[in-house]
Formats: sequence, C-alpha cells, structure tokens
Amino acid sequence: MLDEIIKLSHGSGGNMTRRLIRDVMNNRFQMPSMSDSAVIGGRMVSTIDAHVVKPIFFPGGDIGRLSVTGTVNDLAVAGAIPLSIFIAYIIEEGFPMRELERITESVHQAAQEAGVKILGGDTKVVEHGKADGLYLVTSGIGMLHDGYAPGDRSISEGDSVIVSGNLGDHAIAVINARENLGLQPAPESDCAPLNHLIGIMLETADIRFMRDPTRGGLTTVLNEIADEFQVGFHLFERDIPIRDSVRSASELLGIDPLYLANEGRVVAIVRGDTKTLIDRMRKHPLGTDAQVIGTVTNDAGRVYLETAIGSVRQLPMLESDPLPRIC
Amino acid sequence: MLDEIIKLSHGSGGNMTRRLIRDVMNNRFQMPSMSDSAVIGGRMVSTIDAHVVKPIFFPGGDIGRLSVTGTVNDLAVAGAIPLSIFIAYIIEEGFPMRELERITESVHQAAQEAGVKILGGDTKVVEHGKADGLYLVTSGIGMLHDGYAPGDRSISEGDSVIVSGNLGDHAIAVINARENLGLQPAPESDCAPLNHLIGIMLETADIRFMRDPTRGGLTTVLNEIADEFQVGFHLFERDIPIRDSVRSASELLGIDPLYLANEGRVVAIVRGDTKTLIDRMRKHPLGTDAQVIGTVTNDAGRVYLETAIGSVRQLPMLESDPLPRIC
Repeated sequence: MLDEIIKLSHGSGGNMTRRLIRDVMNNRFQMPSMSDSAVIGGRMVSTIDAHVVKPIFFPGGDIGRLSVTGTVNDLAVAGAIPLSIFIAYIIEEGFPMRELERITESVHQAAQEAGVKILGGDTKVVEHGKADGLYLVTSGIGMLHDGYAPGDRSISEGDSVIVSGNLGDHAIAVINARENLGLQPAPESDCAPLNHLIGIMLETADIRFMRDPTRGGLTTVLNEIADEFQVGFHLFERDIPIRDSVRSASELLGIDPLYLANEGRVVAIVRGDTKTLIDRMRKHPLGTDAQVIGTVTNDAGRVYLETAIGSVRQLPMLESDPLPRIC
Repeated sequence: MLDEIIKLSHGSGGNMTRRLIRDVMNNRFQMPSMSDSAVIGGRMVSTIDAHVVKPIFFPGGDIGRLSVTGTVNDLAVAGAIPLSIFIAYIIEEGFPMRELERITESVHQAAQEAGVKILGGDTKVVEHGKADGLYLVTSGIGMLHDGYAPGDRSISEGDSVIVSGNLGDHAIAVINARENLGLQPAPESDCAPLNHLIGIMLETADIRFMRDPTRGGLTTVLNEIADEFQVGFHLFERDIPIRDSVRSASELLGIDPLYLANEGRVVAIVRGDTKTLIDRMRKHPLGTDAQVIGTVTNDAGRVYLETAIGSVRQLPMLESDPLPRIC
C-alpha cells in the first residue's frame, strides 16, 4: 500500500525509497534491477543521478564535485570505465553567478581527475522559492572492462566482503556543515572518483560484485545484495574502518555509522585470496584504509554484525535514512 | 560581462541563455557546440534534458510525456535512432502519489510510442517549498542512422527550409493552462516523439541539418544555425503554418508566434527536390502540415521574413524568451 503523498523519507534510501521505486517506476518500466546503471548495448553502460545535497558547499567537496564523482562511481562499480558525462542544471532565480562558476569549475576539475569528458548539458532556471539554490543531474556513459560480465556474476558462501576505506565521512561532513554542529576539526567528505582504484581491483582479484555505499550506507547496500543474490553476510565490527571523529559524531546524533552515506568508498565481494588485493589497494591514495570486513554466508537475506565483545546482532534495512538530502 | 545573479531569463532560451552556457559551462568543459546532444563514441549519441514545465499537466501532455519526447527528439534531430532513456525525479515533499503514478504512466506510454526502453533512474525528494511539485531530467542514448555523419554536414545557398507542422501549439497550450487565459477550445500541445517521422525524412531526401524548435522557437533555431554555418535565411510568412487560434492568442499576449516553443516539430534544411519529401511527410500523422517555408541565403548570420504584403523584416535573436518554464 503506497502512501498518499510523497514524504522526505521516500528519497533518503531505505525501504521507503525501494518500495516507491519498485511500485511506481520499475513495475511500469519493467526495469531489470534496483541498480542505478544499466547496459545500453554492446559493452556500453549508462546511469543517471540527481543531486540535491544541502548545503551545496561542504568540506571536501561541493554539489559539482559530488555530481561527477557520483556518476563516475556508479559506472565504475558496474565494472565500466567511465568515458563521458552530460550535466543538467536546475537553478533558482537569484543564485549568485560566482557560485555557479565555482561549482562548474568543480565539475570540470572532478571530470579531469576521473579522466572523463563533459560532452553536453542543459540549463533551466526556476523562480525564486522553487528550488534550493541549485540541483544538478548527471548522466554518464562507460565501457565495461574486458572480461567483466555483470550478468554472469555470482556470490557464494565464503566470499569476502571488503571496503576501500573509512565509512561515514561524507554524511558527517555534510551534516556538520548543514546543522552547524561545530565539530572541530571540520570533518571532510570522502567524495572522490573511484574509477582508477576500481581498475586496479579488477586487475588484481576475482571481484564478484561492487557497489558504492551512498544513501543508507554499508548496511543498506549489503541488505540489497543479500536480497538480490539470496545470500547473507557476517561482519566483524572490529575490522570495519570508521574514524573516531565520525564515531563520536554518530553517537552525538544517535545514528549508527554503518547507515551513513559515503561518496568515495566501494564495497566489494571478492572470491579467493584477498591479501594481494588489500595490499595493492592500500598503495592507492583512495584505498589506504581498505579492509576485509566480513564474509558471505548462506543465511539468505540477513546481515549480521559480530561486535567487538563477541555478541552478534542483525543489521536490518531502515525504513528510511535519518539524514535527507545528503547527496 | 556576466550578470551577478541568475535571472529567470537566463533559462528561457535566447541570447542570455546562450551567453550563460558559453561563458560558464562550454568554455570550461571545452564542449564542441551549442547542441544538446553529442556523439559519445562510435555511432552512439547521447543527450540530457531538464524539464521544469509549469503546470506539470497541460492539454496534449504532461511533464512525463514531455520529458521522453524532448529527449527522443533531441536524439532524432541529431540523426540518431533513439534506443534508451534514463530518468531522474526531483520531487517536492507532499506531492500526491497519484500524480506521480499518472506522470510515470505517461513516461511509460511515451516511451512505448517512441519505441525506446527506460533502463534506469534516480529519485530524490526535497522539502516542501524547495521544488515546484516535480522536476524530471531525462538522458537518452541513440545510434546514428546508417550513412548519417553529423560532422560532415554543410548548408549552402539555395537549400530549402522546411517545418513538419504548425508552430507554437506547445507554448500556447502551456500558457493557456498556466495563466488561465480561458481560450476555447483549449489549445493542445504538439508534444510528440518525432523519431519515426524523421526516419522517413532521412530515407527520402538529402537532409543537411535538423533541429527541434523548442525554447525560443523557429527564429531562435534559425539564428543559431545561421551563426554556426555562416549562412542566412529568407522565409515566406505565407508559407509558415500557424493555427489561427495560436495566431490570435499570440496577438493577445503580444508575442510573435515565430518565437514560441514547440515540442513535436522539426525544422530541417534540405538539399534538392522537396516535393517527394513533403508528400511523404504529410502522409505521417505528425507531418500533415509539413511545409517548405524558405530558403538558405549567403547573408551570413541573418534571418529575414518576407511578409504576406511583400515587405521584408529581420527576425533577430531575442535576449530572452518571454515565456519561462515552458519545457
């Protein structure tokens, strides 16, 4: 049963977002999966992402950098080499031209960092009070890595779960900036294009599946994978990399950091040896804190966390992420 | 010299939009042209379009149909067969679920009409007062028709200018709905996917260039072509198809219908015989009012209109389209 009106929580990840997309969009369009990206023909992959982050500038990035990295990362976790980006601006009347230029410069810089070309765009302006400064929507096109066949992936008991770095940095950076929490030093977003790091990962190991843990964080991504592949996960809390500052900010906010959004991290399911993979990832600037954090089980649809003191608790999907407009 | 803030007129087509896109975006991104679409590799073409039309429902369509047809038409006028669409929703909190379903159904119907697949999407929700109901952004991917090489086109003196049907229907339908002008019968938008009609055109004649006359209408498109190809145009007012109802509504509003937006019309520059082309176009439901409306001249950068009484006046670019949020 659908709600009668759209709520903020419909857009923040979690079960409400999933149900909305499934019932209203995917069922009509007969879209194959929950994934953002899709193969468009041959070995080309495409994706689209809307960005409504608030505030539009935050330590470690801005809506321009976020838009490019978000789209680059969607393509990269689909096993594709990102090639080109198209970008649409929806701008509120009265928006400062200098900020528009600064954000557009960020778009350009992030595209250069990722090695993608901006090939086209669109610009619309709406009246004052009909947007919140600026929204950006980016589409991206990429080409699958040789030998990577997304339809042919399977995940089995005993495969390892790895993350490329500390979790929750992006969400805490944005919330600190938005709510003037005054955390010192101001936490920085992890917002970064992961395509080069993921290229190394694909060369090095038998990567079975990848996702970027954005809205809803690690837990949401693993629950979605658990559902789609009918597997379970057993995670070890002591191995999950989280900064002390993020951990204490999460406690302050009453939010579990395992549900916090990231914009420069990848979760991967890996078969076989992980030592060489982790070693190589740690040599890359975006992978210095890479860790094996758990293992795939047969307990279909369930994600468990073994805590530092040895107790085990389930990590369910949330109905909605408590932090809206984080990306 | 750029303005200090974004104005509504920056988004409505015309010179202000052109300068904004050129100075802020294209110069940074080193984008090749003003065109919405671009070749992304091999014979694949892509495009992105943001849709902020107000109201979201209007006679002849809604924002969902508009989004799909706008993107399909951008690909089709680039000489491509549209294949797939990705769609991003930015929804205002409180938006009725039934309207979301109705619009999503329109997206689906228009995609079926055009023969394209919706392959992916994204959904974001913003607080009440931070959007105007719903904005949709669509990206599209298509494949160039065999033998159509967009980089290889030239336009010369003596080529013909044709339009596929009556001009201004979309703009007047939207304005009538938005401003409660009470025109009777309520004018309907021409909003329709042109890919099948354009396929016939490409089979039949030597089409040198095509554009869909959206924001800024016929005049803006021809001025842009005149600039880009360093040619001129001489149009015959008596041959330009405009409904009487649109003509009188335009007079009422004090707007020249040659600047009104269309969402189901194509302007083409054609070399050689046009009789067979026009005959075949008129047999297609979207081409029944197709007309040759003028000819290409050597008067670089200038668009002239010969009126019904034989006088000639220049049709300049406007600084901005007087009707914002028409698409």
